[in-house]
Amino acid sequence: MIIVMKPNAEKREVDHVVEKVEEVGCKAILLEGTNRKVIAVIGDKRDISAGFWDAIPGVEKAVPILTPYKIASREVKKTSTEIKINDYILGGRKIGIIAGPCAVESQDQINFIAERVKKAGAIALRGGAFKPRTNPYSFQGLMEEGLEYLAKAREATGLAVVTEVLSPEHVGLVSRYVDVLQIGTRNMANFLLLKAVGEGKKPVILKRGMSATLDEFLLAGEYILSQGNPNVILCERGIRTFETHTRFTLSLSIVPQLKKLTHLPVIVDPSHGTGVRDLVLPMSKGAIAVGADGLLIEVHPDPEKAFVDGPQSITIEEFESLMEESRSISAAIGRYI
Amino acid sequence: MIIVMKPNAEKREVDHVVEKVEEVGCKAILLEGTNRKVIAVIGDKRDISAGFWDAIPGVEKAVPILTPYKIASREVKKTSTEIKINDYILGGRKIGIIAGPCAVESQDQINFIAERVKKAGAIALRGGAFKPRTNPYSFQGLMEEGLEYLAKAREATGLAVVTEVLSPEHVGLVSRYVDVLQIGTRNMANFLLLKAVGEGKKPVILKRGMSATLDEFLLAGEYILSQGNPNVILCERGIRTFETHTRFTLSLSIVPQLKKLTHLPVIVDPSHGTGVRDLVLPMSKGAIAVGADGLLIEVHPDPEKAFVDGPQSITIEEFESLMEESRSISAAIGRYI
Amino acid sequence: MIIVMKPNAEKREVDHVVEKVEEVGCKAILLEGTNRKVIAVIGDKRDISAGFWDAIPGVEKAVPILTPYKIASREVKKTSTEIKINDYILGGRKIGIIAGPCAVESQDQINFIAERVKKAGAIALRGGAFKPRTNPYSFQGLMEEGLEYLAKAREATGLAVVTEVLSPEHVGLVSRYVDVLQIGTRNMANFLLLKAVGEGKKPVILKRGMSATLDEFLLAGEYILSQGNPNVILCERGIRTFETHTRFTLSLSIVPQLKKLTHLPVIVDPSHGTGVRDLVLPMSKGAIAVGADGLLIEVHPDPEKAFVDGPQSITIEEFESLMEESRSISAAIGRYI
Amino acid sequence: MIIVMKPNAEKREVDHVVEKVEEVGCKAILLEGTNRKVIAVIGDKRDISAGFWDAIPGVEKAVPILTPYKIASREVKKTSTEIKINDYILGGRKIGIIAGPCAVESQDQINFIAERVKKAGAIALRGGAFKPRTNPYSFQGLMEEGLEYLAKAREATGLAVVTEVLSPEHVGLVSRYVDVLQIGTRNMANFLLLKAVGEGKKPVILKRGMSATLDEFLLAGEYILSQGNPNVILCERGIRTFETHTRFTLSLSIVPQLKKLTHLPVIVDPSHGTGVRDLVLPMSKGAIAVGADGLLIEVHPDPEKAFVDGPQSITIEEFESLMEESRSISAAIGRYI
Repeated sequence: MIIVMKPNAEKREVDHVVEKVEEVGCKAILLEGTNRKVIAVIGDKRDISAGFWDAIPGVEKAVPILTPYKIASREVKKTSTEIKINDYILGGRKIGIIAGPCAVESQDQINFIAERVKKAGAIALRGGAFKPRTNPYSFQGLMEEGLEYLAKAREATGLAVVTEVLSPEHVGLVSRYVDVLQIGTRNMANFLLLKAVGEGKKPVILKRGMSATLDEFLLAGEYILSQGNPNVILCERGIRTFETHTRFTLSLSIVPQLKKLTHLPVIVDPSHGTGVRDLVLPMSKGAIAVGADGLLIEVHPDPEKAFVDGPQSITIEEFESLMEESRSISAAIGRYI
Repeated sequence: MIIVMKPNAEKREVDHVVEKVEEVGCKAILLEGTNRKVIAVIGDKRDISAGFWDAIPGVEKAVPILTPYKIASREVKKTSTEIKINDYILGGRKIGIIAGPCAVESQDQINFIAERVKKAGAIALRGGAFKPRTNPYSFQGLMEEGLEYLAKAREATGLAVVTEVLSPEHVGLVSRYVDVLQIGTRNMANFLLLKAVGEGKKPVILKRGMSATLDEFLLAGEYILSQGNPNVILCERGIRTFETHTRFTLSLSIVPQLKKLTHLPVIVDPSHGTGVRDLVLPMSKGAIAVGADGLLIEVHPDPEKAFVDGPQSITIEEFESLMEESRSISAAIGRYI
Repeated sequence: MIIVMKPNAEKREVDHVVEKVEEVGCKAILLEGTNRKVIAVIGDKRDISAGFWDAIPGVEKAVPILTPYKIASREVKKTSTEIKINDYILGGRKIGIIAGPCAVESQDQINFIAERVKKAGAIALRGGAFKPRTNPYSFQGLMEEGLEYLAKAREATGLAVVTEVLSPEHVGLVSRYVDVLQIGTRNMANFLLLKAVGEGKKPVILKRGMSATLDEFLLAGEYILSQGNPNVILCERGIRTFETHTRFTLSLSIVPQLKKLTHLPVIVDPSHGTGVRDLVLPMSKGAIAVGADGLLIEVHPDPEKAFVDGPQSITIEEFESLMEESRSISAAIGRYI
Repeated sequence: MIIVMKPNAEKREVDHVVEKVEEVGCKAILLEGTNRKVIAVIGDKRDISAGFWDAIPGVEKAVPILTPYKIASREVKKTSTEIKINDYILGGRKIGIIAGPCAVESQDQINFIAERVKKAGAIALRGGAFKPRTNPYSFQGLMEEGLEYLAKAREATGLAVVTEVLSPEHVGLVSRYVDVLQIGTRNMANFLLLKAVGEGKKPVILKRGMSATLDEFLLAGEYILSQGNPNVILCERGIRTFETHTRFTLSLSIVPQLKKLTHLPVIVDPSHGTGVRDLVLPMSKGAIAVGADGLLIEVHPDPEKAFVDGPQSITIEEFESLMEESRSISAAIGRYI
C-alpha cells in the first residue's frame, strides 16, 4: 500500500499514519516528495483495504500495490486449474461447450435438446429451474420439478447438467440433482450464496456481475475458494454500458486479462452477453479466438415458443453450425472442441 | 406494444404475428409504412415482455408503450404514498433523515450515536448487523448480536431502527428486531429476497442497483408491492459509471423523475453514493433541493476507527452542521426537517 | 510517481528503471516490499505521464501521485478566480444565470428572449449560431447572420452574449461579435480549438466532454490556461452512462469536487444535462445547492417551434419561476442571484 | 415514427399532433389503446428527429421506426463497399492490416518500420504527424515534417500511408501527402471536419467516438457520405465504460452488428482499444474471428522509447507473430491476409 498525504498534512498526522502502519504489523517508509509526503507500507496485508487508510485524517488517498485476491491469483498458483465435469476437463486444451435452453420447460423439451446438443459435441447441458426475472409477472421456473427433468436428461444422455442456484437455502437441494452450480450475474455479490457454494465441492460457474470490475469479479471467486471449494469457473457475460444495440456489452478483453492474472478457467456466455440471436455465432468465434476455455450457449428448438429469453436463443440447427465453425477457430489456435 | 417487422418480412410472417397478438387476447392493427410494416397491439398486457415478440421470425423489434410496472405507477395511484416510521411520516412535507454507522460495532457505540443523531433531528437510526463485503477477508458484521444492540438503542432513544437484510431466511429474524428493512444495492435484483420482504408489512428501503435503470428499479419495487407490502421507500445510492473521482455517480435527476412516475417516497444516500466524506454535505443539500423525501447518512464518532466504510462516514459534529444547512434548504422549498 | 515492478522483474530491469528516473532529472528510491519491488520517483515532472513508465520492460504499473494539471489547481492558486462578464462577476457570491435559445433563429426571436431573460435576472444571453448536429440532415445554424443578431440583441439589452465556437478558424470571427466563447462537449478534447481560444482573453465556457473524467476535464482547462487566457469557466453538462430516462446523467457531485481542486468557476447546464424539460427546474435548484457558480439554461418562447432541442427548452414563464425558486435556494446557502 | 401521447392528453392536443404530422407531409393514423393514444406517422422523413415530436404539448415520447442514417444503410445499398487503398481492396475477402508507430518520430524510424511491416504483410503504414494529446505538456507531433517522412516511406516501400487529420483547415495539406485520412475518436463528432473530408475522395478511416452509440457512429459516417465521398471505413477503437483493467472496452459485438446494418468496411484498433500491449494479439485474433475487415495496429521497434503510447505498442517481432496467428484465424473463417 502507498499512502499519499494531503499537501497540507501536518507532521502529527504523518506520525499518526506511521504509527497505524506499525500497529497493523507492517513497516512504514516515509518518502518526502516535492509536493507531497508519501508513506510506503511494507508487508502483505491484503485484508486491510485502501479505505482503512483513506479514513485517517491527513490522508489524501491510499493506493494498493497488491491485488486484493490471493488464492485466485496466478502469482500464488502458477499452473492453470483444470476442473472435472463428468468425463471432461475444463481448462485444458479442449474447449468445453455447455448448451441448453434458458429455462427447463418439460421433460420432453429438455431430453430432446440434451440429445441434440450432445450429438453436436456439447460437454454439458444447461437449463434453468429457478429463474430470476426482472418482471414479477414473468414465468419464474419449474423449480424442483425442473431439477428432476434435468437429472433424467442426464441419465438419458450422460451429459453433465448445469443449473443456476439463487439462494443459500437451495444449495443443498440443487446440489443433489446437478453436476455444476451456476451463480448468475445478479448474485455475483450475494456473499452468503458465494459462501454456501464454497462449502461444497461441486464446480461453480460464477458469472461476472454486470457492473463488476475485474478485481471485484476475482474477489467473488476468492470468496468461494476461501471456503474450500477449488472448482471455480469464471464466466464473462456482458457488462452494462451506454451501448443499446446489444442488451449488454460483451467485454472479450477480460478473457486474456483473466487468464494472465488467475489460474481459474474462463468461459464466455455470448447469448446473455449480447441478447441478440444473430450475434451469438460471431461472438462465440471471437470468444474462442481470444482464449476462452469454454462457451455457455442458449439453444431452443423453437425460440419463438421459449418461455424465457427467446430473442437470444439459437435453434438446434444454428447450434450445429456454431459447433462446426467453432471447431475451425479452435484448430487455428491449437485447441479443439 | 408496437411491433416493427423487418424490411423484408414476408406476408406469412406478418400474418403469424397478427395471429399471435390475437392469441394473447389483444387486438392487432396493421400499419403499412413506406419502408416497414408495423403492428400496433391494443390491450394492456404488461406481463408479456418485448422479448416475447422479438423472438418471432420476421420481427425486427418490439417497442413497449406502457411501463412494465403497474402498482408502483402514479397512473394507477395518484396520491403520494406516506409511510409511517414510528412517530414520523415519510413521503409528506417533512423530510426524514436517517443516520447512523455503517456497521453496528458495540452497544455503547450505537447508543451514543443514536442519542446524538436523535438530538440533531434524525427520525431513525441506521446500522448494519449483516454486512455484504466485497472482500472475503473483511469484517462481516455482528449479526444477531448487532440486531440486539439496535433494539436496545431504540428502547433507549425511541428512534426507529433500520438495518439491511441479506437473505430471505433472515427476514423473519431481522423483522423481530427492527422497524425498517433495507435491501442493499447488490440485492436489488435478488428476487427471492424481494418476495420475502413483500410478504410482511414492515417498511422496506429498497436501494437502487448500481447498474439498474429506472424501469428495473421500479420493477424491483413492484415485486415487493405485488406481494402485498405497500410500504416501499426507494433510495438512490449512486450508479456505476466511468467516473473515478467518486466511488459511484449519484444520479440526482432520478429523484424528480421517480416522483413523477411513482407515488412511492424517494430518498437519497449521499454517503455510499459518493464514497467521499467531503461530498456528503453538498450532495445532501442537492438531494433535498431536487425533491428527495429523505436522506440516509453514515455517521461515526471516529470515522478512522470505523470497522467499515470510514472514508465516507462523517463525524457527529459534521452531521449536526449537515442538519443545520439542510434545514435552510428544506425551508427554501417549502418543506421542513 | 510510484512505479510498481512485476513480481518476477529482474534486477537489471529494476536498475534500468532507476537509471531512467535519474535520466529525467528525478530521484529514485527503491522499496523492497514483500511481493514487489517499488520505485518512488521524487520530483515534480507532471509532463511525464504514467504511460512513459508503463512502457518500460519489467514495469507492472506506474501510479501518479500529483495531478496532471497544475495552473488549474487550487494548490497553485488558492483564491477562487472571478471572471468579469460585462458588468457581472462569475465565481463570487452572486450566482450567474445565462439563458437563451439553443439556436439563434431570427432577430425578433433573439431580441424578445433577451429582453425577457434580462428582466427575469439573467446576466448573459446564450444562443447558438454554429450548431454541431449529430444528424447531417438537421438545421446547422445561421452562422455569421446569427452572430449579428446576437450582437444586436446585446446592443438592445446590454446583456453579454455567449455562443459556441466550433473550429479554430472561427475563433477570430466569433470573438468580434460575442463576449463569451463556449466550447461544446464534443469539442472538449479538440486541442487545436482549445489552443485557439487560449490565445485570446475572452472568457471561455468549457463544457465537460460527455465521457471525460475529472482529470481530463481539468487538463482541457489547463490547455486554455497554458496559452495565457486565465478566463476559463468549467461547465458540467451531463455524462454518458447506461441511464436512459435522461439523455445524459448530470453528475452534480463533480461540482463540489471541482471547487475543491480548482480555483476556476464551475457552472451547470441542466438543459443538455438532462434533455428533459420537466427536469430543468429541479436540477437547477440541485446545482445551486451543491455549490455551482452559475447555470446555463435553454429558454424558448415556443419550444414546440424551436429549430433545435425543443424537448429540453423551457418557456419564458417557466424560466421566470425557475429564477424565483433559485433565488430562495441561493439565499438558503448564503448566496444570491 | 410512433408518437405516444401522455395518458391525460386532451383531444385538442391529439388533433394538434395529427395536424403537425400532415403539415410535414406524412400521413397520421390514430390508434386508441387501452391506456394511451398513439399516432403512427406514415412516410420516410428521417430528417425529422424524435425530438421534434417530443417537444409538442401532450406528447409523452416519439419512437423512431427507421434508422436515422440512409446512405450508409445496407437497406439502401445491399452489396458491401470495397475501398481501394493503392493496390489493395478493403472490404473483400482479404483482411487488411494497417500498422505503424503512434507518432512519426524521424525518417529513419518510419522507413525502418515501413519496411518491416510491409515484409510481414501489412497493406498500409500508419503514423501520426499531428497528435491530439490530453496533456498540453506532451509531445504534439512533427506536423508537416512528419507528413514528408510518411510520403518518403511510401516512396521507399510502396505502402499506402494513413495519418490523422485534426482540423478542417489541414485536410488539403494532409491530403497532398497521404493516401488515407484518419478521423480520431475525439473528432468523430467534429462535424466541420467530417464535412471537409467528405468533400474529397480520399478514403477516410472514421474512428468511433469513445462514447458514441452505433447510430451516432453511422450518422457520423453518413455526414461524410452525404458530402459525396463514398470511401468511408469504420473503425471500432474501444468505448468508455466503468472497466479499469483496460484503457477502453473494445466492443467487438459492434463489428458483426455494423456488417449487418451497413455496407461500409469495418476495421478494429486493438492497440488504442485496450491500451495494453499484452492484449493486442488476442484481441486482434478476436476481431478477425467476429468478422472485421482489417486491423489498425501500433508497432514500434522500441516501445520504451516511443514518444507516444508506448504501453500499447508492440515490437516488430511481436507484430510478425501477430500476422502469423492472424493468418490462421483468417483461414479458419474462409478469408486471408
